[in-house]
Order: sequence, then structure tokens, then C-alpha cells
Amino acid sequence: MKFNQFAFHTPDLATQISELKQLRFLPADFTVTATNPTTLWLHLLQQTQVQALTPAGKKAAVAEYLATPTTSVPEFVNRHAVDATAFYTVALQLLGFEHGEDFTIGDPFPAMNRFHLPYHSPLTTTSDVVTAWYDLLNTFTKGGYVYLDHLAAAGYFHQFDNLPQPLFFNGKAQPVFATDNLVREVVYVESDLDTDHDGRADRLKTIIIRPQATNQGIQVPVVFTASPYNQGTNDAAGDRMMHDVNVPLTKKPVQALTYTDIAYQAPTVPTPQKTVPTNTVTAATETFSTEPSVKLNEYFLARGFAAVYSAGIGTKDSDGVRTTGDPAETAAAVAVIEWLNGNRPAYTDRTGSTTITAWWTTGNVAMTGKSYLGTLATAAATTGVDGLKTVISEAAISNWYDYYREGGLVVAPGGFPGEDADVLAEECFSRQKTANDYLHIKKYFHEQLAAITAGQDRTTGSYNAFWDARNYLKDTAHITADVLIVHGLNDQNVKPVHAYNLWHKLAPLSGNRKLILHQGQHIYINNFQSLDFSDMMNLWLSHELYGIDNGAPQLLPDVLVQDNSQPATWHTFSDWGGKPNQTLYLGEKQLRTQRQLQVPVASFTDQLDPVDFDFYTHNLDQWENDLLTLKTTKLTSQRLVFLTKPLQQDQYLQGLPQVSLHVASNQDIGLISCMLVDYGTARRLKADPTPLRGFSIPYGYHWQNNQLHEFTLAKQPSSFKLISRGHINLQNRTNLWQADPVEPGSFYQVDLSLQPAYYHLLAGHQLGLVICATDMPMTIRGNQGITYSIDPSKSHIELQMTPFH
Amino acid sequence: MKFNQFAFHTPDLATQISELKQLRFLPADFTVTATNPTTLWLHLLQQTQVQALTPAGKKAAVAEYLATPTTSVPEFVNRHAVDATAFYTVALQLLGFEHGEDFTIGDPFPAMNRFHLPYHSPLTTTSDVVTAWYDLLNTFTKGGYVYLDHLAAAGYFHQFDNLPQPLFFNGKAQPVFATDNLVREVVYVESDLDTDHDGRADRLKTIIIRPQATNQGIQVPVVFTASPYNQGTNDAAGDRMMHDVNVPLTKKPVQALTYTDIAYQAPTVPTPQKTVPTNTVTAATETFSTEPSVKLNEYFLARGFAAVYSAGIGTKDSDGVRTTGDPAETAAAVAVIEWLNGNRPAYTDRTGSTTITAWWTTGNVAMTGKSYLGTLATAAATTGVDGLKTVISEAAISNWYDYYREGGLVVAPGGFPGEDADVLAEECFSRQKTANDYLHIKKYFHEQLAAITAGQDRTTGSYNAFWDARNYLKDTAHITADVLIVHGLNDQNVKPVHAYNLWHKLAPLSGNRKLILHQGQHIYINNFQSLDFSDMMNLWLSHELYGIDNGAPQLLPDVLVQDNSQPATWHTFSDWGGKPNQTLYLGEKQLRTQRQLQVPVASFTDQLDPVDFDFYTHNLDQWENDLLTLKTTKLTSQRLVFLTKPLQQDQYLQGLPQVSLHVASNQDIGLISCMLVDYGTARRLKADPTPLRGFSIPYGYHWQNNQLHEFTLAKQPSSFKLISRGHINLQNRTNLWQADPVEPGSFYQVDLSLQPAYYHLLAGHQLGLVICATDMPMTIRGNQGITYSIDPSKSHIELQMTPFH
Repeated sequence: MKFNQFAFHTPDLATQISELKQLRFLPADFTVTATNPTTLWLHLLQQTQVQALTPAGKKAAVAEYLATPTTSVPEFVNRHAVDATAFYTVALQLLGFEHGEDFTIGDPFPAMNRFHLPYHSPLTTTSDVVTAWYDLLNTFTKGGYVYLDHLAAAGYFHQFDNLPQPLFFNGKAQPVFATDNLVREVVYVESDLDTDHDGRADRLKTIIIRPQATNQGIQVPVVFTASPYNQGTNDAAGDRMMHDVNVPLTKKPVQALTYTDIAYQAPTVPTPQKTVPTNTVTAATETFSTEPSVKLNEYFLARGFAAVYSAGIGTKDSDGVRTTGDPAETAAAVAVIEWLNGNRPAYTDRTGSTTITAWWTTGNVAMTGKSYLGTLATAAATTGVDGLKTVISEAAISNWYDYYREGGLVVAPGGFPGEDADVLAEECFSRQKTANDYLHIKKYFHEQLAAITAGQDRTTGSYNAFWDARNYLKDTAHITADVLIVHGLNDQNVKPVHAYNLWHKLAPLSGNRKLILHQGQHIYINNFQSLDFSDMMNLWLSHELYGIDNGAPQLLPDVLVQDNSQPATWHTFSDWGGKPNQTLYLGEKQLRTQRQLQVPVASFTDQLDPVDFDFYTHNLDQWENDLLTLKTTKLTSQRLVFLTKPLQQDQYLQGLPQVSLHVASNQDIGLISCMLVDYGTARRLKADPTPLRGFSIPYGYHWQNNQLHEFTLAKQPSSFKLISRGHINLQNRTNLWQADPVEPGSFYQVDLSLQPAYYHLLAGHQLGLVICATDMPMTIRGNQGITYSIDPSKSHIELQMTPFH
Repeated sequence: MKFNQFAFHTPDLATQISELKQLRFLPADFTVTATNPTTLWLHLLQQTQVQALTPAGKKAAVAEYLATPTTSVPEFVNRHAVDATAFYTVALQLLGFEHGEDFTIGDPFPAMNRFHLPYHSPLTTTSDVVTAWYDLLNTFTKGGYVYLDHLAAAGYFHQFDNLPQPLFFNGKAQPVFATDNLVREVVYVESDLDTDHDGRADRLKTIIIRPQATNQGIQVPVVFTASPYNQGTNDAAGDRMMHDVNVPLTKKPVQALTYTDIAYQAPTVPTPQKTVPTNTVTAATETFSTEPSVKLNEYFLARGFAAVYSAGIGTKDSDGVRTTGDPAETAAAVAVIEWLNGNRPAYTDRTGSTTITAWWTTGNVAMTGKSYLGTLATAAATTGVDGLKTVISEAAISNWYDYYREGGLVVAPGGFPGEDADVLAEECFSRQKTANDYLHIKKYFHEQLAAITAGQDRTTGSYNAFWDARNYLKDTAHITADVLIVHGLNDQNVKPVHAYNLWHKLAPLSGNRKLILHQGQHIYINNFQSLDFSDMMNLWLSHELYGIDNGAPQLLPDVLVQDNSQPATWHTFSDWGGKPNQTLYLGEKQLRTQRQLQVPVASFTDQLDPVDFDFYTHNLDQWENDLLTLKTTKLTSQRLVFLTKPLQQDQYLQGLPQVSLHVASNQDIGLISCMLVDYGTARRLKADPTPLRGFSIPYGYHWQNNQLHEFTLAKQPSSFKLISRGHINLQNRTNLWQADPVEPGSFYQVDLSLQPAYYHLLAGHQLGLVICATDMPMTIRGNQGITYSIDPSKSHIELQMTPFH
């Protein structure tokens, strides 16, 4: 149990006092000189007992805390002045730590040091008490959220009339807004698109949840999530469309191409017919009851932000068709932001002419959400649309080619072999759920779906105009929003390269960029005990959308990385990647710092007997284990392993591992997969965070909450862990679009980047490079009898690796 | 996907019309004769579009439903009268089924038959439409709750002023109460107990959540949950107290005893000092924010019931010490009911003299909750306390001996080897969490804990006065409440015998009894798609607490059993158990319908080599698999298996399997474990219900919800499944308290009951009896080299088994 708080700063005493007065912890006439420190402490403690509705009750409640091993708080203050030991002994009880288990009554500091909790010692003056209290309100409870959030959930803010709204403390918006009377509205934003080719501009259903206080004149900023999923998904239909991945690799016609040959050219489309508005209203005529749940948005709803959701073209109750990541889909998300900023009309229904304005917002927008949701946040940012101040892109795609393809190959998002752009289009086409709507759009949509199937081109796997249209990285120069990237280093679905490439594209821009890399797979991280993620986002959005001068750009680390070797440990860095500083040469089963000449060529054949092949296609985890383990398995002869010597000291491996192989195939086709592996016996973090029973993070007073989680070590040690993988078609040695010839038996130098890493290698472990062909969970699986040969003496890997302190 | 609704009935037309008027679906002046059926249908459909706030919006929304494959509703009614096909084609869309996936537009009945959904056909008159609509409101949506609940969650009720409160439809209370302004109060009930021996009557913190409408004069009944867990648990301390189960079985001194010798005698205790009240108030001076979550209570909170929770003696903010199931703990739960009925004072705080009355309740109480919570419901019922009209005992203990002991042996609750009454007392002693309170009670509590450790007597495992004090079955004659029992047939924690014994003890009583047996382990079942559990409970409590004449005792089946061989299938029966009708005799590895003479004695030795022993103690599932499988494993020689021939037809095995063995031990001690096993390859239900992604059950308008689940078949077939197990100490051949001698090598006739079952055996499968000694997940594990011999010719098993149709 360790707490890592970054959205935490201690301002000067005058600011502390002013903010504590605003919170009503200090009376309006408070002065340091007129107040006894012990009396102040007792007063503050009583204020925390929100459940007690009388002064006598508050007093009695405080008497249940021990100030020393044998003295309750009132007994203590009768005889002593407050000191740091008493203050923090009580503080740990307030913060929900268990005496006797987590800490010892009367000896709080060893536990606080162990937990990384801030404290002030010595503590003697009234100023000391003020400062210590100020920081205590910002300090994490055992439940993984700050103490002031605990008090807020107990009703602290809701006992006062006339609190300022919004209210900021320590630079962060506080949950002072009622959430039991939120306004829920539906509007239909008119876009410039006509993706369903009916001649009318596509209207986009947009739902709004805003504090009731906006009806009393407060204007609020917006957290906006574009989620193609939130009007429902066609799971069964999508499953039926899944492509067979047990298909052979085939030869691509040899063809020399430049990027210009395949670059996406936006087609000229006729402007669709726009509605002539007849009148404008301020109240919607449609409402809703159950909203999509994006926890981060719920957190902000209590804090003076509106939440807006739109599912986009081709979703239920909207016009248009699904296009899976093309510019039209981006434009649909952008249209909502334009409406929020008064630059585009919305209508009260899908067909009428009554417009409705977003009069309740300041127009300042942040986009949020994970995966496809975060992807559309990134996409919207690349347009530079007015009002979009920042995007929080979590586990987001930055280039759809990197999602469904790699190195001239069809490579699946982990967990979804056989999925492709067309499958996703079908899955998200929730207009299908409305029977009458579907009746009229069905034919056209299926034509469009067929065009996606053709455009994505599973036959070659090459980069083409279809994919170029869906590559946001080529448009990053237009980004004006600040960008905060969150990505899992173990995300095999949206792989880390998406975050890496976006991060580097942002470097030359003038905006702020921040990066958080965690040890999760494809998950949200706003429920971790060890990290103040929600507070960081609060600091960020209070700064970005409310313009609060809270130092967010400086306080938040540029690059924050969760350590893979121990729980609850986060490191800060200034960048990710950079030039490789170490070359490891392939030797005979070795990775060496010196090139070895005269190494025999190593070969393997990529074919399993049909029974084993069938077994492994249904047991992909087993396949990965059997491929990577150093023990002998049915896959041992299917791959080559090259190992370093055991490391003398801990190392941090980061950035893009670059592999260069001298390789031959015995046929006129071939693919190579490389895995970088940490070999060494250790208890490693489990793949998924563990729910911490009995703890949940409250987002306000009688409002939503979030089950607390933390990555914990597996009970049993494991002997290796995959760090990174990469794939290439031997015909794509030159680039992703050109098809080179492969002569059977001829050796070629093939360069490929593996997925970027930030990996803590422990002393005594060995770094391994595993080379194989078919990567069962990822590539197509031809089970073809192709023999590959590697010349180690002409092969190497380049890494950035630095000693870890 | 199959729906099983029991809380469903179709009243006469006049009642239908009257109730539909109250719901505002029909106007107050509605008459059948003056209304065109098609017009009525269109009117009703428009009423369902709660999200549309204007008549035009409602009309447009209805136009999105198809009445035929090519005609929307308005197009249809322009040309046709409503008929059953159109009505139910639209109905299935309203109910959330997917056209093209779940059903075919224009052909609704095959799907409705498949799903077991009710319908009326032909449908031509206005009366037909009324009846069909009435039933439709009661029909399950795909999400596993009735359509009226769907409308309620969308805000249907909340759009009307002046709805009656409470409001009943089809005999069930509807969610018409606001839940965004619930009153939350804390009171301290004064009991007659003084379990902490401080001379003062123990006060018990009790929390109340009640509809705001009670402040306007409505009196409501109460769902009350006594939960020792809900003020927190001392998990780490409990874990440290866990007893070692890797200990040898030891010889008990031979001793002849009668029940009278060991019967519990209530001690005479001095009456503690009661407070003299000084004044009475009607408003509490303490509130709270986060309530314990018992989903069934949340369901009722929107429906005109208050929820009350009390954790009992020895929990945080209450007086007393934990006693794990003794009469004092029962009295603590009963005290709350007495307060709710005006028969006992409660105070506004833990020490003061201001009383507060439960003026807002009718005093009618149902107790709810699972496991320990349900146990205290059963316990309270055995006192016959006034006001307790019914208990819903889910997975409840009826006799603590059957929880921690069996057959004169220490036998663990599944999943918790080493737990005992003392461990549970420590875990639930949440007074420990309040530092100052704990400082003063610590010494006395540890003395009491030592007394529990002594009383529970892990040395012999015999039934004694300690356990007799904790056996609710001996007090069932006092039960006046109606009892509804819910239990998992696969619950290895609180085993099915608890429900079985209580069920049979209730038989001679005058009250109603109901029993629901599901295929779960230790779980709640109010989130199943296939069963209207919440509706059944609603029917039950509307009848029991509100006195609604809804036919609940007749409508709800006496015994409802989930089938183990296929998903979503529930059978009704009149009873559980009864006389065995079949004897199976042990032969040479066989279970036979005819006794076989001259069968060789079969022997096994209960000892593993230390490495295997250690492995299995850490891999209990593997142990169970290796013991029961017919394949050869390291445990094959540790057990005997006797198998029937493959069954000619499906059979239902139910009640208590009775095993009689002629057995010898080669030492002066011994224990026997028996398992009844279904051998046969089949895809079986998974052990845990599967969450159904994207579906959650709403409990009201912007109120709590519950993730939908259903038991589904495992992807892979399995070759056997444990049906039932049982254990006995050879020294307890006579009864649970007397210790008989065991002469090494002497054969004894030993009779034991296995856990009761309700098991669907498929044709072609074989029933097996596995006999072993140590049952790793359950018994102590001495790993002693004891050799057991069974004489099959004098051994048999008696079953109740009937052909299944």
C-alpha cells in the first residue's frame, strides 16, 4: 500500500487560510494570532463529524479517536497541546487506516513514511495546524481518494447553504453541485455530412447531462465523450462477420509504389441540404433516463461540469452510416463541439426545424473516454476545432492501420482475431436496432459495408488509401488542444505504439502534452488505490476548462510510468523513447554486446501437426506460454531464442526496440514475428488489477462510485514475461505499401520496430529475443510448411537501456 | 433465453381496467364499448415513449416500430385493425428483443413460445387489447425485469403528480416513491442484554432509510437486515486466527451421553441497568451517507418500504461483544423489531436519555439477507416476535453445528478451512475499529473470545452445549412468521442441509412456507434473467406486509427448483425429500439394485506422500478433480468408487441420500467421507452465473440497479459432477455427542446422511458413490496412515429417485 499523489501542492499560508474559510473549516473572522492551536485542532476535528447533527454529537464522535495509546482526544487536549504525533495519530484514524493493522496508535510516522503520506513535523503553532489540516484534506484515505472527497461523500458540502459554485480547493473543482436533480436533454446536431446519401444533412443525436445550477445562470464547461457504442451494439451480427484467420499467407504481386500513389484524397461531395430553422427554443423536448457510464465524466458532473455524449453517424436515432474511423466520423464528433460553441445548429428532434442552443455552457470542452472513445478524442483534436481545449485520450487508436494491420500483414487487435474495420462498422451500426429506420437504410448500409470490406484489403495487408484516410498521425499539425495520453503498457488490443506515435507527433507543437503509462491491459485507471488519477484530471480540467491558475502543467509529470516489478510504484520521466544506446548482436542462442562472426545459420519451420494446430488455435494463452518458455514444448522447434547473460544490475528498457534480421524463406513468401521477453523467476504483477474488497471511491454525495482496484503480485512466481512484440511481411521490407519480391533461399536484411516499452528489468534476469513466424493471437495462421533461416552474425537489436536506480 | 414468471396473474377485465386507469394508461372515463381497439393500441404505445415530452415526439417515436416486415405502426393502422401478430411484433420491440436476432418481424409467436412469454391470440376486440396490454406490462423484457419496471426506470411514474402512494399493480408494489430524497437516520435501540458486562443495557446502532413521503404522513412497512458485517470486518485479524486444519484426528475418550447431558441451559443473568428516558423526539440527531447495499432492500425502497439495518452486539458504535449465533445475538436482532413495533425504546445516541419512536412505520417487518444475514432472520423468527410477518432466509444457517461441524468432526464451510465460531466473532467485532472504544473493551472481549474457542471444542468435534445454544432448529415451534427459504444446491459454504432441516421443521406449523433451490453456490439470485425473483418477493411482501390480497401463497410455488442440466429451466414441486424409494447395494465397484453376496472387502489407505499432500492442500480443486475422476491419478488408491449401470432414462434424485456402510479402521480412530457423483460427459452449467454484458436491472427512476446474470453452459463438456457429500467420525456412530469405541479391525455399521439434493440425472449417465477418508476442502487433514475396509455386501445407499419427464 503506497500512495502517489501528483495533483497536490501546498500554497502559502494566506491562500491556505482563504481556501479553508471558503470551505467553512475556518470561520470568516479567523486569524492565526487569535487562535490557540489545540482549540483549532479540536474545532477542525469536530467539523469532520458530518453524521452528527448536533454540537454534542460532534463532540462525542471526536472522543472516539485516540490521541495516544491510552488517551482519547478530549482527554489529551485537557492535558496537552496538540503536537505532530497526536495530530497524525488521529489523522490516520480519520483517513480510514486501521490501528493495530496499518499503523500503531501514538507512532504514526513509520506508517506514513511507508505509505508515502505527507505530514508536517514538528507541529506546534496555529499556522502549523492550518497547514497540516490543509494538506490533510488533500491526502489520500486508505480508500484511494482524498480526505475532502470522503467528507464530501458524507455530506460535508451539502450541509451549507450558499457555497460558491463552482468551488475550487487546491486548484481542483469540488463536488458542491447537486446530482439528484441533473438536467437530462437530447438534441440533434446538424452536421455537414450526408453519409447515408439521402440528400439531407446527417443529424446526430446528442445527450446532455448538466447541473440544475445551469438553470440558475451558471455556465459550465463540458466533458464530451464520442462513443459509437453507447446506443447499443450488434454483437451477434458482428460475431458472424468475423473473418477466418486460419488462412494462408499469399504472395503479393511485386509492385513499386510511392506514398503519393496510395495517399488518401478527400472526395468532392455535394453539400447536403440543410434545414432552414423556423424558431429557437432553450428547453429540449426529449429527455432520457439511463445515461452511458464513463466514470470520469460522472466524477466531474458533481464538480461543475456538464457531460455530453454523442454516438455519431450510423448509430441509433442518428442519421448516416458507420465508416470506422474515417474523416466523416471525426467530423461528426467535431460537429457537437461546434454546436457547444454556437458555431452550428442543433434541432430538438431528428426531422423538425426548431433549433436549440447550448446556452448553459462556456463552450470549453474536454473530450474523454477509452479505446474507440479516446480515438475519436484524438481524431477531433487533429481538426483544431474551436472550443476543444484538451483531450484525455485513453488507450486510443492513433492510426487504424496500427490497429488492424502491421508490417504489411493482417495483425489482429489482441483478443479479437478476425475483427476488422467492416466488423466494427457492423457492430456499431445501432440504427439497426430501430426496426423502421433499419428497413430504409439497410440496403445502402450493406453497400457501404461491402466498400469497407474491399477497402480494408485483407488479401495484402498493405497500407493503402483506405488506411491513409484513417491515419490521424498525418494530421497532428492541426492540433491546438492540450493532449493527455493514457495507455497500458500491456495493452494488446490497442497496442502501445498508438500512444508512442501520437506522443512524438505532439513534440513539435506548442500545446502541453502529458503521458501516463500503466501496467494494465485495455482498462481505465481511475480506480487505482496507488494513484490520484481523478485528482490529476481534476487539476488538469480545472486548468484547461475553468482557467484556474493551479500550476497543472508544471505539477503533473510529463511522463508518468507505473513500475512492472512491484505494486503501487510510479516513476516520473521527461520523455518516452529517444535514440537507442545499446546494440545487442545475435550469436549462437545469445544476445551479445559484441558481434560474433561465424555463427551457424539458425532455422525453423512454421508448421504444426493438425491436431496441435487446432488445439493451439483454441488455447492462445497456452500457445504463448509454450512458445516463450525455455522448457521444451511442442513449439520449441517453431522458434529461435537468443538470450543475454544475466543482468548485473536493474535496467530500464524503454522506447522502440529495433530489430534487424538477416533472414531467408524457402518460399516466395514469409512473415517474421519477434518477441522481446524478460526471462527470470519472479512474482510479477497480475494481468488485471485486483478489486480491493470493501472499498469504493465516492464521486460525491449520494452519487456514483467506483470499485477500488490495485495491481497486486501473483501468488506464484513466473519464469518469464513478454515485454514487446512485432511483425513484418518479408515483402514489406521497404515500406508498408510497396510489395518487394522474395526469392526462395535468398537472405534479406529486414528491419522492424517492436511495440514500445517502459520496462524494469531486474538484476539476474535475462533479456530474450524470440523469433518465430505465425503469432497465433495476432497474425493469420496459414500453418504453411515454410522454413525460415536467420543469419545471426548479420542480425542485431537496438535498444535504449539505462541502469535503474 | 427462457423466462419463468411466477408472480404473474391475469385478473378479470374490470380489475385490469381499474388498475390501468390508476396507472394512467387508460383515461378515467375509459369504457370498452366507446373505444376502438386500434386507436387504443396506438394510444397505449404512445404512452410508453416517456422520453418524448411532446405529443408529436411520442407519435414520431412510435413510428419507429415496425408492425409488419414493411410497415411502420402508423402506416399499419392507417390500413388495418390491430391484430395479435402486429401487437406482439411491436411488443417484442418494446421488450427489447432484437429483430432479426431474437425474433422475426411479422412472426412473433415462435420466439415468444421459445422464450416462454405470455400472449393473447387472436386479438381483435378492445377488451383483448386491454388484457394483452395488462399482461404486457407484467411481461419480462430481455433484460430480465417486467416491462412496467422498464417504463418506471424511464420516468413513467415520475411524470404524474398525485399518483397514489403506495401503488399496487397486479398485486405488486410499484416504484412510485422518490429515492433522491430518502430520509437517513441513526438510532440506538436499547436491548435487555449486557453482553459486555458493563452493567448497562447494550445499545444497538440501527440505521433507517425511509421514503420522504413518511414525513407527509404515510406509514410504511420495513425490510430489516441484521448484518454483523455492515459496520466493517477485521479481516486481517480473522485470518491470523484461522485454525490449522493439517492436524491429526485423535481418539475421543469413550463416553455414553444423552442429549440432556449436553443440552444448552440459558444462564441466569442479572438484568442490566436501563436508562430512564427524559424526553422523546421524532427526528434523529445522527445521519449517515453510505448505506449497506442489500439489493433486495434497495428494490423495495422505491416501492413504499423502509429499509432498516442493524449490525448487532459487538459491532462498531454498538455495545456488547460478538457471540457468533447465540441467543443474545438473536435477541439483539429482535430488539430492533420490538422498537419498530413500539415495544422497546431507542435513543438518539449511544449514551443519552432522549428516546425516539418509529412513528413512520406500520410495524410490519420482513427480514432479508443472505448467509449470516439470513441466519439472523431465521433466528429472529424462532422467537415469534410481534411484527415479524415473514423472513426471506437466503443461504442461511439453521444450526451452527452444521456450519462448522458434521458427524462428530470438524468440517469447514467450503472455502474457509480453519474458520470457526471464534474466528467469525473476531472478524465481526467491529467495535475494534473505533480506537477509544476498543481500548476499553479489548480485555473483556478477548476473555469472551477465549471462552468461544473453548466452547466450540475443535478437539472432539462433538455436539455440545455450545452448539446446542446455536441450534435454531430446536426452537422452530415458536415461529409465527411465514418463511421463504432460498438456497443454492451447490452451496458448499452454508450447505443445503441448513435449508432442508428448516423446511422440514416448518412443516407442522400453521404459517406459509416457500422454498427456492437454485444451481448457485453462496449467492443472491435477484439478478437472474430467467426468473422473476424480485417480483415474487414483491408479491410476497405486498401480501405479508401490506396485506394485499394478491394470492401470493397460491401463486408462488411451494418448492421451486432450478434444473442442473440446462439453463434457464425451473421446475415446481410440492415438497423436498420424503421417504427413500430406492436402495442401491454396493457390489464389486458397482451400485446394484440387488444385493450381491460374497463381495470381497475393499480397502484404501488415507495417506499421501508429503510432497503430494502439500501440493493438494494448496490446490483443493485439483484434489477434488483427482479424487472423483475415473481416470487414474495420485488419489485413485485413496478412495473407492461404486457405479450404477448407465441410466435408461432421466431421473430426478432428491432429498437426503442415506448411506449405510459396514466399515473397519485398522486404528482406534477413523473418519469416512462419501460423495455422490454424476458420471457422464455433458456440458454442464458453470459454477458461477455469467454476467450478461450490457444488461442491468433498474430498481426505479434514477435509482440503484443490478447487473443481469444467468447460468450458462460451460463451453467444454465435463465428465462428472459432485452431487452431494457427507462425513462421519467412526466414534459418532450413535449420535453427535456420544463417543463410541473403535476397535482396530472391527467392522461397524455406520449410517450417515449426505447433503440433500435435487438433481437431474441424464439418461446414459452413471450414479457413483465415492468413499474416502480425508475430504481436503472440508475435514481436518491428518495425513495419517489409516487403512479403512468396507464390506460392500453389508453396505448400501437409500435414495429417492423418480423418472424425470
